[in-house]
Amino acid sequence: MRQGSKGDRQGNINMNSRFGKVAIVGMGLMGGSLGRALLKGKTAKEVMGIGRNPKKLALALEAGAATGVTTDYKEGFLNADLIVFGVPVRDIPELFRRNYGLMGSCRAVTDMGSVKETIVSEIEKIENGAGRDMNLFVGSHPMVGSEKTGIANSSPGLYYGGTCIVTPTARTDKKRAAYVRDFWESAGMKVVSMTPEAHDEKISGISHLPHLLAFMLSNMQEQTIRKNSVIIGNGFKDTTRIGASNEKIWSGIFLENKKAVIGDIDRTTAELKKIRKIIGASDEKKLQKYIRNARKLRESLNK
Amino acid sequence: MRQGSKGDRQGNINMNSRFGKVAIVGMGLMGGSLGRALLKGKTAKEVMGIGRNPKKLALALEAGAATGVTTDYKEGFLNADLIVFGVPVRDIPELFRRNYGLMGSCRAVTDMGSVKETIVSEIEKIENGAGRDMNLFVGSHPMVGSEKTGIANSSPGLYYGGTCIVTPTARTDKKRAAYVRDFWESAGMKVVSMTPEAHDEKISGISHLPHLLAFMLSNMQEQTIRKNSVIIGNGFKDTTRIGASNEKIWSGIFLENKKAVIGDIDRTTAELKKIRKIIGASDEKKLQKYIRNARKLRESLNK
Repeated sequence: MRQGSKGDRQGNINMNSRFGKVAIVGMGLMGGSLGRALLKGKTAKEVMGIGRNPKKLALALEAGAATGVTTDYKEGFLNADLIVFGVPVRDIPELFRRNYGLMGSCRAVTDMGSVKETIVSEIEKIENGAGRDMNLFVGSHPMVGSEKTGIANSSPGLYYGGTCIVTPTARTDKKRAAYVRDFWESAGMKVVSMTPEAHDEKISGISHLPHLLAFMLSNMQEQTIRKNSVIIGNGFKDTTRIGASNEKIWSGIFLENKKAVIGDIDRTTAELKKIRKIIGASDEKKLQKYIRNARKLRESLNK
Repeated sequence: MRQGSKGDRQGNINMNSRFGKVAIVGMGLMGGSLGRALLKGKTAKEVMGIGRNPKKLALALEAGAATGVTTDYKEGFLNADLIVFGVPVRDIPELFRRNYGLMGSCRAVTDMGSVKETIVSEIEKIENGAGRDMNLFVGSHPMVGSEKTGIANSSPGLYYGGTCIVTPTARTDKKRAAYVRDFWESAGMKVVSMTPEAHDEKISGISHLPHLLAFMLSNMQEQTIRKNSVIIGNGFKDTTRIGASNEKIWSGIFLENKKAVIGDIDRTTAELKKIRKIIGASDEKKLQKYIRNARKLRESLNK
């Protein structure tokens, strides 16, 4: 592997285009921000933006997120070194299946989905079933993003400094996995490896459950938000910021990670029962201990 | 009432000290920020900081949060026009009771507690029991703050632009209530009136429950926070920011507002059951509808 360079938050990496042509499927917030970072940092020589909507693709081109755009996967994948799927999780396996035959020349295929087990196993089935020895896919989850969507909200600095989880399995080609790791490091990310199963369980707790609680909080306070929003302060706003996230993306994530998410809902219900008991008993000592522990944990994340 | 002036976020109000002497009990984040705003904006001529700890009082004086400090309530309250309690909710009624005899000369007494029903009713009992016609107290809850505490984290701009809920009752002296409203408006706040009961119920949902969920989320993710914090992103951090709040303050709030908080815990459990059912049934349409409603509500708070 060539030596990685970390660049800076503005996307200035100057790697002399070490990744020749990168094809990105989906030019929304994630794909658009990635394309802009790769081009601004000269990490890739060419970025091909692939999507269904020509108007949105034109906006991506205009925003400097791609050197070329197309609705045609054959043209888009031609001579690509790396293919990155930046579409909602439920669309990834099907788009992979439909276009697998066009990926032959690339060094690796990855994605940016927030769920890994179902995506990786479905794609491995496709790769196995193809009857050829070509395990192109390496699952990725760059843990950056925004509650906002679309190229208009994209930013070339979105990835820099964030953490990307890569989820190779026993079937994953080691060289391709190293290539994908190298790619994310070149975009300025810290890279961590774990199994798809471990990813889904951990991310359910630290990302999917907080999103679910944020959606829930806003819905529970519908009357106050509609009729009396003047009394809503910054605490509520921060806690629910991610609750302004997109319904298509997040219904897909919850359903693809159903098992872990339901496990976390059940753990939450049990934890609420425990807190209810402490408050019900006016056990100030236990309650202070519970809050102090939470405070110290949260403060440790600021360091 | 004199004409209110809104000043600016830097606390520049220049009202020629329309509130002569304001005594603030408790020179922490809330009391310290208030003192700094009143002096910087010349809203008060004198701010007397009252507390137990001479070292902390000296820091408040140094920070420009008071023109004088004392541990002696008699000295502190002497000739005060307004007395403001800025201490944890559970300490307010007892401090009021102990020092009620020293408040004779002032135009009003108020507080900044996040719970109102227990505080207001306990203080009204004290005022009733005193056998004299002197209803000094008007409950307030300026809905600003921070997960941080202490004079070192105080800011003269904390109150400006925020909302303050004032909770007069049938017993409250109307002139004193108007005086307290005027005071918060002079500090640049929007002022809303409601009963203590309505306050506690609404604030439980939009502030106490979000805090409780933030504490809970950090405690549930203790292992990941301790061992794998590199994978924790901004979503979790924003959602749990208020979960770094102080245990003495927040155990007091939960216990003083026990009835409403337990009601909200039960509503949360019921809501989680509803969401669990939708996810369990893989009802994508219902799930998208649920999230879309939440997204639109949350987006409306950005306007």
